[in-house]
Amino acid sequence: MLEELKIVRQLEKLFPVGRDVLTGIGDDCAVLSVGGKILLAAADQVIENIHFTPETSPVAAGKKLLLRNVSDIAAMGGAPRWAILTVAVNGRDEQYVLDFCRGVAEAAALFDVSVIGGDTASLPAKGVVATLTILGEAPPTGAVTRSGAKPGDYLYVTGRIGNSFLSGRHLDFMPRVAEGRFLAEHHLASAMLDVSDGLLLDAARLAKASQVDLLIEPEKVPLHADACAPQAWSDGEDYELIFTSPEKLEKLEDEALVPVSCWGRCVSGSGRLLDRDGKPFQSERLGYEH
Amino acid sequence: MLEELKIVRQLEKLFPVGRDVLTGIGDDCAVLSVGGKILLAAADQVIENIHFTPETSPVAAGKKLLLRNVSDIAAMGGAPRWAILTVAVNGRDEQYVLDFCRGVAEAAALFDVSVIGGDTASLPAKGVVATLTILGEAPPTGAVTRSGAKPGDYLYVTGRIGNSFLSGRHLDFMPRVAEGRFLAEHHLASAMLDVSDGLLLDAARLAKASQVDLLIEPEKVPLHADACAPQAWSDGEDYELIFTSPEKLEKLEDEALVPVSCWGRCVSGSGRLLDRDGKPFQSERLGYEH
Repeated sequence: MLEELKIVRQLEKLFPVGRDVLTGIGDDCAVLSVGGKILLAAADQVIENIHFTPETSPVAAGKKLLLRNVSDIAAMGGAPRWAILTVAVNGRDEQYVLDFCRGVAEAAALFDVSVIGGDTASLPAKGVVATLTILGEAPPTGAVTRSGAKPGDYLYVTGRIGNSFLSGRHLDFMPRVAEGRFLAEHHLASAMLDVSDGLLLDAARLAKASQVDLLIEPEKVPLHADACAPQAWSDGEDYELIFTSPEKLEKLEDEALVPVSCWGRCVSGSGRLLDRDGKPFQSERLGYEH
Repeated sequence: MLEELKIVRQLEKLFPVGRDVLTGIGDDCAVLSVGGKILLAAADQVIENIHFTPETSPVAAGKKLLLRNVSDIAAMGGAPRWAILTVAVNGRDEQYVLDFCRGVAEAAALFDVSVIGGDTASLPAKGVVATLTILGEAPPTGAVTRSGAKPGDYLYVTGRIGNSFLSGRHLDFMPRVAEGRFLAEHHLASAMLDVSDGLLLDAARLAKASQVDLLIEPEKVPLHADACAPQAWSDGEDYELIFTSPEKLEKLEDEALVPVSCWGRCVSGSGRLLDRDGKPFQSERLGYEH
């Protein structure tokens, strides 16, 4: 529907920000300076028939809402702390809302997130629309934005991707909080974001924000057993981390953490995806804007 | 639809909070300790055909969303600072969304609020659902909650009330930020909340949270010229401040501020509204839960 990047650019103009806002609209999180701390803030929605189906259990839908917000904090290298929840429903009973909230609470407990407030309301027609705003703390080394990639940096992605929606993984995944924090604290990530709308589309966003071109070899990215390329490169909702690093990595040093795959290199440019021959990368579709 | 108080009580049990959460679910704002600051956080929604009509201009609807959130910060005596916005639409074009956001931006500018992030999404059916999370700073004297009223305190409300929806005032009002802050900083408010769902219903919430009974004389509350009692006492969306004070006030001392009306007194009790004879206050309806 709305072209996200285009509208985000217009919104940036609409919404001037104060000096205590270190990063505003357009990254995974906004970055604020508050009382000696660096705070992160982001909001995401889950909508019935868009982000989950009428058959999805309310517990699973609530869990997804919390987890996808936590993933935005992970993408900055931060630690999630507090959440504010709104739920608007029609045609569902109170038990549905409580079960949805229980899903949020269960996922919040995994990350020591306190759900501190919110609002419930009625929708005029049957459906469920829920939003969550997450607040977190940046790592002591500073938040990792999308815009710090430099020519020469290597391009990575954590874990495996593909077929998240059909497999049900979009409802039950572990946001890469520990991995994002490890990368940030060891200065291993010059730019980072999470894969929400598709590997290629999100990589292109990093490239645009950093004003570099990316020479990519997406066939080097491991897929889940039930996923196929090239579809997997634009499926989205993988909630893995795409990051660039000045260093060549095989895996993250902490053995508890997942492997990372190098699937490209940053070169001077203006935000394009290029194939290994330096020609514009050909793809039917980059990703999916929900 | 959902009984707000009942569901809020269940949610309080679902959502345990960390020690840095000074006030959680159930007040106008959550209160957080962050670094050396006390932060306030609240979220509210506006939904087409619930909080505004299809004829309402998107600018006005956006403005209302920001203002009603600012009113929650005012109700704690705080200063609004940052906002995170989500908009989900179907059957509206990009210009509608931009106009809605312009309304948010115009209202934000009135209060020096920075809109720092958010999300846009599609709804599966025609409509508009928007939410805003507001963050603010508590006054140096501490946030004023709903629960601090003591027997002997006087009950006040700022300004005039009634007929907010039909008159259009629900779309264009000035949240009582300066008044709330003045009351907090001069220790004139022992408990406070804003009138969102109706004078009587919101007063009953203050009484329950503070565990006092309120002897009320709502006929002492001035009405707008186009409003009638007793309807005005339950109309809601007045966005005036109800507060209790240990002191007898005629008006707020600063001449720039609005008159306040004393319309009751706190006595020992358990959260009931009583008439001047101490009998349960008789009312067809206390208010409206949106």
